[in-house]
Amino acid sequence: MKYADMTVRELEEVLRTEKARYAEYKSMGLNYDMTRGKPSLEQLALSDKMMNAEYFNGGRTYSGTDCRNYGGLEGIPEIRELFASIFGVPPSQVIAGGNSSLNIMYDLVSAFMLLGTGKGALPWTAQTDRLLSGEISFICPVPGYDRHFAITERLGIKMINVDISEDGPDMDRIEKLVKSDAGIKGMWSVPKYSNPTGVVYSDEVIERLARMKCAADDFRIFWDDAYSVHMLEGEPAKQKNLINACAEAGNPDRAYVFASTSKMTYPGAGVAAVASSASNIEWLKHIYTIQTIGPNKINQLVHANFLKDYDNLIIHMKKHADIMRPKFQCVADVLKEELGDSGVLSWSEPKGGYFISADTVYGCASQVVAMSRECGVLFTKAGSTYPYGKDPENKNIRIAPSLPPVEELRTAIHVFAVCVKICSAEILLAKKQK
Amino acid sequence: MKYADMTVRELEEVLRTEKARYAEYKSMGLNYDMTRGKPSLEQLALSDKMMNAEYFNGGRTYSGTDCRNYGGLEGIPEIRELFASIFGVPPSQVIAGGNSSLNIMYDLVSAFMLLGTGKGALPWTAQTDRLLSGEISFICPVPGYDRHFAITERLGIKMINVDISEDGPDMDRIEKLVKSDAGIKGMWSVPKYSNPTGVVYSDEVIERLARMKCAADDFRIFWDDAYSVHMLEGEPAKQKNLINACAEAGNPDRAYVFASTSKMTYPGAGVAAVASSASNIEWLKHIYTIQTIGPNKINQLVHANFLKDYDNLIIHMKKHADIMRPKFQCVADVLKEELGDSGVLSWSEPKGGYFISADTVYGCASQVVAMSRECGVLFTKAGSTYPYGKDPENKNIRIAPSLPPVEELRTAIHVFAVCVKICSAEILLAKKQK
Repeated sequence: MKYADMTVRELEEVLRTEKARYAEYKSMGLNYDMTRGKPSLEQLALSDKMMNAEYFNGGRTYSGTDCRNYGGLEGIPEIRELFASIFGVPPSQVIAGGNSSLNIMYDLVSAFMLLGTGKGALPWTAQTDRLLSGEISFICPVPGYDRHFAITERLGIKMINVDISEDGPDMDRIEKLVKSDAGIKGMWSVPKYSNPTGVVYSDEVIERLARMKCAADDFRIFWDDAYSVHMLEGEPAKQKNLINACAEAGNPDRAYVFASTSKMTYPGAGVAAVASSASNIEWLKHIYTIQTIGPNKINQLVHANFLKDYDNLIIHMKKHADIMRPKFQCVADVLKEELGDSGVLSWSEPKGGYFISADTVYGCASQVVAMSRECGVLFTKAGSTYPYGKDPENKNIRIAPSLPPVEELRTAIHVFAVCVKICSAEILLAKKQK
Repeated sequence: MKYADMTVRELEEVLRTEKARYAEYKSMGLNYDMTRGKPSLEQLALSDKMMNAEYFNGGRTYSGTDCRNYGGLEGIPEIRELFASIFGVPPSQVIAGGNSSLNIMYDLVSAFMLLGTGKGALPWTAQTDRLLSGEISFICPVPGYDRHFAITERLGIKMINVDISEDGPDMDRIEKLVKSDAGIKGMWSVPKYSNPTGVVYSDEVIERLARMKCAADDFRIFWDDAYSVHMLEGEPAKQKNLINACAEAGNPDRAYVFASTSKMTYPGAGVAAVASSASNIEWLKHIYTIQTIGPNKINQLVHANFLKDYDNLIIHMKKHADIMRPKFQCVADVLKEELGDSGVLSWSEPKGGYFISADTVYGCASQVVAMSRECGVLFTKAGSTYPYGKDPENKNIRIAPSLPPVEELRTAIHVFAVCVKICSAEILLAKKQK
C-alpha cells in the first residue's frame, strides 16, 4: 500500500513495526561499510596471478623496451594498445600513466587553469577578467561522482547542476548553457553505468555533446569511462565513441576520455589511461614532459601481460560480473520486497557499474543515512552525489553493494529499508498532523 | 703544458694532432649516450629479485594492510619507516607516493601557485599584484638540475642564478636576496652529491638556510635529496638535517625534502617520498585527498620487503657503489691523462651521485658538446645545467658516466677530451691572431 494513501493510524502502525525492527537490528552490533565502490576480496583474488615471474618477463616488453629503466612518457606500447581497444581509438591517441585516473583528471584541470588547454590558449585563471560571468564553471550532471565535484570545488571552479535521466543529462539545458557563457569550460561525466545512477548515455546525447555550439572554444568534456567494460551480465553496453563523434562534428579537441584497471585488477595499484585527439595528446605530452619522469612501466608490463587483449579482458570482466551480479540482485530483491508498493523510494536497477542510486520520495536522505549509521550500516554521506555536497531535495542515496558478502548486504539493505520507512512515515505523519 | 702559455705554432700543432685523433674516432661510428643519469644494466640486475612472490607476500603488509584495494593516502607504514630512516625524521613526517619524486615537486609548486602553501595562505598566483617585484621567483643554485629549472620555467616562475661552490651555494647572496624580495618564494637544491657538481652542502650552509630571514613568510626550500645514500665508497656523507635545523631555527615549515628509490631499485618504477614538518604534511594530505586515490601500495610493498631497513639498504647501495666507482675513476683518469696540465678544463671528482661537472675554461661548452655529438658521443645539452638553458659563460658540461660500460666510457671521455682540446686551442689561436 502506498504510504501516501495511508491514514494516520496506518502510518503510526508502520512506525511501531519498523521501530521495533530497527531496535532489533541495532542490538545486533552490525558493522557494514558500503560507503565506497570497493571490490570484494573475491574480486581481488581474480588478479592474484598477476604478480608472477611469467608476467614480469625479466622487465622486458615483447616490443623490446626495458621497463626497469627511465624513458617513455606515453606508456609502453602493449598497454596503450589494450587501452586503445577499450577506448576505440588508435594507440597513438592514448597515454597510459600511473595508478589513478582521478589523478590524471585533477592534473589536467589544474594544468588548464595554469597553462591553458593547448598551444596559444590562455590559462583559465588568466581569463576570468574578460568573462562576462567573471568565473570559470563546469557543468555537473547530477547525481554524480563526488570526487569529480571535489576537484572542481578545490580548484575554485563553479559547478552548475544539470539533471540526469534515463538517457543521460538534460541536453536542452546543457546546449543553452554552453552557448551563452564563455566561462563554462568543462563538463564532468560518467557516460556508461554512471556513478551513481547506472545510466548509459544514449548515442543521441553523445552526438549532441559532440555537436553543440560552445561560447568557449576551450570547452572540454571530462569523460570518465570508469565502467566501460563493467557490465553485470553478457557483454558491455554498446555506446557511440565520443572522441570520434567530436572529430566528425568538427570539434576534435573537445573530449578527454579516462579509464583505469583499478576495477579490473587491483584498485589503487592498476594502470590509468587517457585518450583524446592527436593534438590534445601532444598537449598532454607537453605537460607531462615537465611534470614527471614517466609512468611506472613495470606495473604497465605486468598488466599488459596479464590482461593480454580485449577479448581476454572481457573474459576476465565476466568473472567480476559473476561476483557482482548476485549482490545487485540481492539489493533489488530486498528493496522490492520491503518497499515495492510503498511509493516512498525509487531506485535504479543498473546493468553495470558499481552503484545503485536511490531517491527518497519525501526528501529524507540525510536522515536515512544517519539512522543507518547509528545502526552500524554506513552509506555514502547524503548530499555527496551533488556539487558542494548539497542535494537540493535531500533525496539521493548512493548504495555501493560490491564490498560486503551477499548475506551481510541483505541485512544491510533491510536496515536501510527500515530506515527509509521510518523517516518517510514520520514526514507523512507530520504533514497530516499539521 | 698550459695552453695559455703556448705559442701560435704550438697551438697549431695541438690542433693538427687532435683533429687527426678526432677524425679517427669519427670513423669508428661510435654511438654512446651519456645525456642522462641512467643506471646501467648491471645495476638494474641488483633488484631483479624484487619482483618475487616472497616480497609480494599475497599483497599484505606485515602490519595487515591489504595493498590490493583502495585506501591509504600517505603510503604504507613499512615504506614510510624506511624513508623516515633516510630522511632522519619520524615516519609521521613522511608521505610515500608514486614512482617519481620530480612529479611530487612539480605538483607541489603547481599547488602552491593555485592553492598557496598552507591553510589561510594566499595562492602564489594571487600575490603578484601586491609584490613590489610583481613576480614570483625561485633561487636556483647553478650549475644545477635541468628538470628542476624546467618546472619553474613552465609554471611562469622567474629564476635567479646563485653560484655554487665547494660547500654549497653562495649564502651571502641568498640571504641578501630573500631578505628584501617577498616575491622570492622558493629555492631548488640537490644538497648531497649535487647534480651536477657533486658538492655536499656544508652544515654551516644548511644552518644559514634554516635561519635566514625571508621577506616572504611562504618561502619554501625544495630539497631534492636524490643522492642521499648514493656514495661511491664507504658510507654516505654525513650532513645536517635541514628539516630539524628549520624547526630549531623557528622556521619549521620552510623545507620539503624529496627522495626516491629510482636509483636504488628500478628507475621510473620505484617509490618516491617527501618529508616535511607535521603541519606541511597535513597540507600535503589536504592536497592529495582531492588530487589522487592514493599511491600504488603494491609497489610500495615489494620495495619495503625487498629493501627491508636502512642497514640493508646501505648494503644494497654499496653494491651500486662498486659498479659506479670504476666509472668515475675512469673519467678522472682519462681527464687527468689528457688534460691534467692543459689549464683548459676543470672538473669535479665527486664522492657520490651520478655526475661529473666539467667547466671549459675558455667558454666553449656548446661547441664541445656539438663536436662530440657529431662523433657519436652524446652529452647533456650545453646550457641545460642553468635556468632557461642559458649558461652565461658557456662553460659547463655535465658528464653522466653511469650507463656505458667502462670500456665505452673510456673511449667517450677520450673523444670528449679531444673536443675540449680542439675547441680551446681554436679560441686561444683566434685570440692570439687578432
